[in-house]
Amino acid sequence: MKICILPGDGIGPEITAEAVRVLEALDLKFEMEEALLGGAAVDATGDPYPEATRKLAREADAVLLGAVGGPKWDTLPREQRPERGLLGIRKDLGLFANLRPAILYPELANASSLKPEVVAGLDILIVRELTGDIYFGQPRGIEVRDGERFGFNTMHYTESEIRRIGRVAFEAARKRNKRLCSVDKMNVLETTQLWRDVMIELAPEYPDVELSHMLVDNAAMQLVRAPKQFDVMVTGNMFGDILSDEASMLTGSIGMLPSASLDANNKGLYEPSHGSAPDIAGQGIANPLATILSVAMMLRYTFNQESAALRIENAVKKVLAQGLRTGDIFEPGTTKVGTKQMGDAVLAAL
Amino acid sequence: MKICILPGDGIGPEITAEAVRVLEALDLKFEMEEALLGGAAVDATGDPYPEATRKLAREADAVLLGAVGGPKWDTLPREQRPERGLLGIRKDLGLFANLRPAILYPELANASSLKPEVVAGLDILIVRELTGDIYFGQPRGIEVRDGERFGFNTMHYTESEIRRIGRVAFEAARKRNKRLCSVDKMNVLETTQLWRDVMIELAPEYPDVELSHMLVDNAAMQLVRAPKQFDVMVTGNMFGDILSDEASMLTGSIGMLPSASLDANNKGLYEPSHGSAPDIAGQGIANPLATILSVAMMLRYTFNQESAALRIENAVKKVLAQGLRTGDIFEPGTTKVGTKQMGDAVLAAL
Ligand SMILES: CC(C)[C@H](C(=O)O)[C@@H](O)C(=O)O
Ligand SMILES: CC(C)[C@H](C(=O)O)[C@@H](O)C(=O)O
Repeated sequence: MKICILPGDGIGPEITAEAVRVLEALDLKFEMEEALLGGAAVDATGDPYPEATRKLAREADAVLLGAVGGPKWDTLPREQRPERGLLGIRKDLGLFANLRPAILYPELANASSLKPEVVAGLDILIVRELTGDIYFGQPRGIEVRDGERFGFNTMHYTESEIRRIGRVAFEAARKRNKRLCSVDKMNVLETTQLWRDVMIELAPEYPDVELSHMLVDNAAMQLVRAPKQFDVMVTGNMFGDILSDEASMLTGSIGMLPSASLDANNKGLYEPSHGSAPDIAGQGIANPLATILSVAMMLRYTFNQESAALRIENAVKKVLAQGLRTGDIFEPGTTKVGTKQMGDAVLAAL
Repeated sequence: MKICILPGDGIGPEITAEAVRVLEALDLKFEMEEALLGGAAVDATGDPYPEATRKLAREADAVLLGAVGGPKWDTLPREQRPERGLLGIRKDLGLFANLRPAILYPELANASSLKPEVVAGLDILIVRELTGDIYFGQPRGIEVRDGERFGFNTMHYTESEIRRIGRVAFEAARKRNKRLCSVDKMNVLETTQLWRDVMIELAPEYPDVELSHMLVDNAAMQLVRAPKQFDVMVTGNMFGDILSDEASMLTGSIGMLPSASLDANNKGLYEPSHGSAPDIAGQGIANPLATILSVAMMLRYTFNQESAALRIENAVKKVLAQGLRTGDIFEPGTTKVGTKQMGDAVLAAL
């Protein structure tokens, strides 16, 4: 059981350090090895996804990632930007299924910008396709045509790409409240007309799951209006990028939300849903809980260790119940702690 | 001063009828003529944007549209769906600049799913490019390749397309709080890298406007987290479709929000931001205020009649202050009225 650890940039090293401590405390005999991704990798090697990282990531059963990116690398040529590393590893490892839960912890209900009654008990799972769509489509670029610059990108999906992510979403819905909402823009985009067609074709294989469809503009509205109407949502890479971030923010506590990106054999890359927060990097104040909860997802999906996953999730609930909060989720009446103290508390609660 | 009236489908005929009464009451000697668009046009002619409508719309100085679409036409071939009529008229008239205000009326603050302090006083203007992007890009389609179906679409923008919408947005910001946020996905899409480059190139011409940039996923989050940080937002057709609907829903009263779609000479199509609401069509209960406020936008942008526009907007504020509400914005303690009564009240308040 080999885990590749990619601390990444910004607060990445601090939050992965706590998650690694949690992994170690489980006594499950993981072999862990660290490598570089993103800006840290560019600085060291000139490549955001260097060969050594590629080798390690391919050999490992699972990857734990902190976060990548920061203003320091924003002016580099496209191929050297930290995000390229992230897109590179997703594609290289075939991590087509991105699972992003948006869960509101009762203790953190105040953090939401939405009214309590609108979000209380919120528990949505967004299933985003992660290795196709306009993210990777060719042709693409910026060229001069008819004397002016012309930028172009290509959105595309094959029916087998849609079918495999559809199956992941149906299976996930089956284990939850059995409602799946597929999001597309079929009234404008042929690619997503095919998306809808394939989802409809899959449905008879999952008679216990209720499939519905929603246009992406309406989905963006419904998430604001009445997010609890959703159980599992499935959509393409581009729409998923937007909707999963919108859904996370409904909770107001994005520092609590993990994510998993899986291949066809449940090998996965696990990372917090939040970014690298360069503004608070190195200060020891970042919230490590999303990364720790990403470890729980890793145990569940890649290592089939449901009870260890629950142990971690319960430990996190316990520290919340104890009133411990990092700065991002702090409110008067609770106890403000730093990254390491929060890690200590989770370890103690384990 | 010629206005083409397109009642459209669902509640369209009911709400445009009230808006037409308001136009008549202004005594500005408009010539008005009605035509078919969307499902109504398909039923009558087989074409969602028939030749007769095209002729009238081209000759007119402005177009007032109710709404198009409904389940009745959802199973027709793509070319016959009501949305094709809408996309067709936008492209045909060159209506590249879509202006969508998201304004929270103080009397309706409760309607929002967000906390009052997060949305009180909200006043955002979204400027969406409307005739380019993946909406109209070629090649596109669904084909069989390597033995399976393959769906594809093309996103593209030329620098001149970006520049002209950029100018509209900078000008709009100049008349408001002088802050413009341009939304893109430059870290993934070359098309939107060009978008950002062109916005940056335009900025020196508008030294009084503060330009910022935001990635679309972050914008979807920030609209939920702290929407009042925005003044004017500008973005492409696809992202604008999603973000403008999300922003409207922040108010919780989308039945109040008008929109304008302008060409290079301020000829415009004006329509409510909400849809055709087939479920309540024909019952006389739809909210006509967004359509009436669309008339105000028409007077302001196409006919340069600022005082008449303000007269209408003040009349609408007055009926809200009087406590009159259609079902969509009703709450206990206010007076529920139907479409026509609401129209009567606005006319009286004029
Ligand atoms: C950093 C960026 C390339 C990435 C994406 O767009 O996929 C990020 O926004 C995410 O959602 O993981
Ligand atoms: C009906 C549809 C084609 C249209 C669009 O996507 O532009 C609508 O959603 C809108 O925003 O006006």
